[in-house]
Amino acid sequence: VRVEASQLVRFVTAVLTACDLGPDDAARAAELMVAADARGAENHGVFRLAQYVRRIQEGGINPNPSIRVVEDHPSTALLDGDNGMGHLVMSRAAEIAIEKARATGLGWVGARRSNHAGPAALYALMPCAHDMIGMYLAVGSANHMAPWGGTERLLSTNPISIAVPALSRPPVVLDIATSVVAFGQVKSHVLRGEQLPHGWMIDQLGRPLQDPADVHEGSLLPVGGHKGYGLALLIGLLAGTLNGAAFGTDVIDFNADFRSETNTGHSVVALDVASFGDASSFMARVDAVCSVIQHSAPLPGAESVRIPGDRSATRMSESYRHGIAVRPELVVELNGIADQLNVPAPRI
Amino acid sequence: VRVEASQLVRFVTAVLTACDLGPDDAARAAELMVAADARGAENHGVFRLAQYVRRIQEGGINPNPSIRVVEDHPSTALLDGDNGMGHLVMSRAAEIAIEKARATGLGWVGARRSNHAGPAALYALMPCAHDMIGMYLAVGSANHMAPWGGTERLLSTNPISIAVPALSRPPVVLDIATSVVAFGQVKSHVLRGEQLPHGWMIDQLGRPLQDPADVHEGSLLPVGGHKGYGLALLIGLLAGTLNGAAFGTDVIDFNADFRSETNTGHSVVALDVASFGDASSFMARVDAVCSVIQHSAPLPGAESVRIPGDRSATRMSESYRHGIAVRPELVVELNGIADQLNVPAPRI
Repeated sequence: VRVEASQLVRFVTAVLTACDLGPDDAARAAELMVAADARGAENHGVFRLAQYVRRIQEGGINPNPSIRVVEDHPSTALLDGDNGMGHLVMSRAAEIAIEKARATGLGWVGARRSNHAGPAALYALMPCAHDMIGMYLAVGSANHMAPWGGTERLLSTNPISIAVPALSRPPVVLDIATSVVAFGQVKSHVLRGEQLPHGWMIDQLGRPLQDPADVHEGSLLPVGGHKGYGLALLIGLLAGTLNGAAFGTDVIDFNADFRSETNTGHSVVALDVASFGDASSFMARVDAVCSVIQHSAPLPGAESVRIPGDRSATRMSESYRHGIAVRPELVVELNGIADQLNVPAPRI
Repeated sequence: VRVEASQLVRFVTAVLTACDLGPDDAARAAELMVAADARGAENHGVFRLAQYVRRIQEGGINPNPSIRVVEDHPSTALLDGDNGMGHLVMSRAAEIAIEKARATGLGWVGARRSNHAGPAALYALMPCAHDMIGMYLAVGSANHMAPWGGTERLLSTNPISIAVPALSRPPVVLDIATSVVAFGQVKSHVLRGEQLPHGWMIDQLGRPLQDPADVHEGSLLPVGGHKGYGLALLIGLLAGTLNGAAFGTDVIDFNADFRSETNTGHSVVALDVASFGDASSFMARVDAVCSVIQHSAPLPGAESVRIPGDRSATRMSESYRHGIAVRPELVVELNGIADQLNVPAPRI
């Protein structure tokens, strides 16, 4: 089903307003959730609405947070999200990082007492709109990964996103989990009862885990073995520990627990390209580098070499032109949430 | 052969002085080269001396650079390394980043017209000595990797290092190439005539390349497939393109060309932990997180779970206590360089 983006934003705004979010906050969070779907990050978009609503209803998310700056320096800040929706905390963090970068060349804003904020790329892209390089780091919202060489799930799939603005092409956007796959992809296989591919998970003895029935006894594998483990650990220290947020044993599984404050930590960095010389000429050089790579010889069987972020950018322009693809079951679920909350029509 | 660190530093200093480096510059570069060996990064330490000397002799490195700050903002700077040794350019960059972080919370210093600087961790660790988090990004000094889905070697193994200070344990240090293995490991196999392990390289048709004779027709694989490719590309844009340094087609292979200026780009970031609250309490939390991970259950067959950087820290304390391990062939090579340059005794 294709739903017009603005219609989906209005719908999600109405649902969040019914959950006691202020109208501006509801609209902001709704826009970011819909933007996630528009870019094709369906697992981090309106699909999460039911979970957010349940958390708000059970006291796990504060619908009216007072987001405060608790540390403020010329190029850094630390926010206390007051357990509000992550979208609100992190879009605020990105705004402050951009302001600081405009003044000093660089801004790094961390947050604690935040919540799941959707796909990493959304926040790394915010500085790009101001001719800045953006970066986003987060502690994931559940521990599904053991350290390399271990069996205890002490790590999340801690994602990193880096976005670089270009002149006449979309920004170059890296957005990766530090596990081989995100746990969402495992869950999709479980729902369909399909065997997991080799290399996604291991069991308590380190053997490949492929039976969807055994997923809860296993651990996701870090991308590139010890390298992905190291990256997940360092991102956790930067986005969690440094911000006074959860990391390691104190991470709450937000899929299973709807009441406890998650104390989610994330950080946004903005780097002003103009501090390194003329911004347009940098962006033209980015165009040129990408063009060479994109037009280089593909492997036999590959159509062409891709630049990270291009697929999402194409998807986004399609979404805003033809409407956002929403699975029929999700439409039913979303309308059910609206009914339950007595949100006035229209439905989607 | 074990050589005392101070003796090795004196020796390398004498060789570099004989190559017309000023005494302070020679000592600085020598200390960093020996520190690389001390940490066990042998491929990036005194092993490179012959290559550096030849580059200086053939005009590929400027022994008396005038390293200049060409862009200066409260939290960022851009250095022109005047084609000097990378060690000098990047230790200067780290100093400036630390100063800026002390003043504003954060410093990001990029460099262009630099050269190979040894292992990434050296520069990420410099801010740690000031209770700061350090980060280092670089464009590698030769293109051995194709973009994911492609066959043309347009990318280097662009490394990233992140170092986080702890209270009563060594810093946590990530130091990774974005390829599955560094090209140095491939070269070691070639020298010994050994088959390469599956998963290191592919040939022009995308098939596994394992015959050491075919290495020059192949491409290193990025770590984690498209994820490592994306990371290599973004690091290249940040450390190369942003700094006005080489990246992509303009990278010079410093193993094959000893005359052309490489225009190597790298960046150092310093983040002051005290900007996020009490530094000691942060470092104590780092200790605690590491302790839980380190003492968590290992996989059957694994001795224990490791924290990144610990092995190098152990190696370093052994090196400074018992001397630095130098292969006998390398001792011969090093003494040969000193003879050729008429460096006065002693030899090692």
